[in-house]
Amino acid sequence: MSEREHSNGVVWGPFGEVAGRETVPGITMRPMTGERLMLCWVDLLPHAVLPEHHHPHEQGGVVLEGELNLTIDGVDRRCGPGDGFIIPGDVPHSAVAGPNGAQTLDVFTPPREDFRS
Amino acid sequence: MSEREHSNGVVWGPFGEVAGRETVPGITMRPMTGERLMLCWVDLLPHAVLPEHHHPHEQGGVVLEGELNLTIDGVDRRCGPGDGFIIPGDVPHSAVAGPNGAQTLDVFTPPREDFRS
Repeated sequence: MSEREHSNGVVWGPFGEVAGRETVPGITMRPMTGERLMLCWVDLLPHAVLPEHHHPHEQGGVVLEGELNLTIDGVDRRCGPGDGFIIPGDVPHSAVAGPNGAQTLDVFTPPREDFRS
Repeated sequence: MSEREHSNGVVWGPFGEVAGRETVPGITMRPMTGERLMLCWVDLLPHAVLPEHHHPHEQGGVVLEGELNLTIDGVDRRCGPGDGFIIPGDVPHSAVAGPNGAQTLDVFTPPREDFRS
């Protein structure tokens, strides 16, 4: 599927069936998009680098598998499974995946138009 | 921690260290809250029942472990790990955990004031 959307605006299904897009080398996003929320299943290859960037969208996330070295507003943290984060809009952040890669769920409000499948 | 919030509005840390609250018998929520987003780690005991309800907040989620029988706007779906969903505001929904319970990450925008820790 691209995304399974029902007539009432409900979206559901396996993230594994959402078309993936490699937005940065080694980082693949699979988005489900509502009106106000976008949930992205993110696969990061070992040592994949997300360069520092910022956006007006508020972002949340949780590490599901592997290790992610996350830098938010100049502060580093090594994150593993079950570690969560919320990044206010316009705050710079970057990330480097660990030696075995990582999987995260990233959440944006409003949806990021550039990630729509 | 209740929630680790830095002066710049960044929140991060292990969900396992967020104080849990049993909002419905057998269902414990651990929230991290931003300005526009609330992420909740949800533990459901085996066969725990979330009665039908609705709220103006848009809700998204993903099943992390176990099985969840989810009903959204009268449509049932058995969800397992990696299954995601987005429920528009004011759409009725309910859930029953499987025989081994379930863990989900639930996301709300705006944050649900009734779930703040």
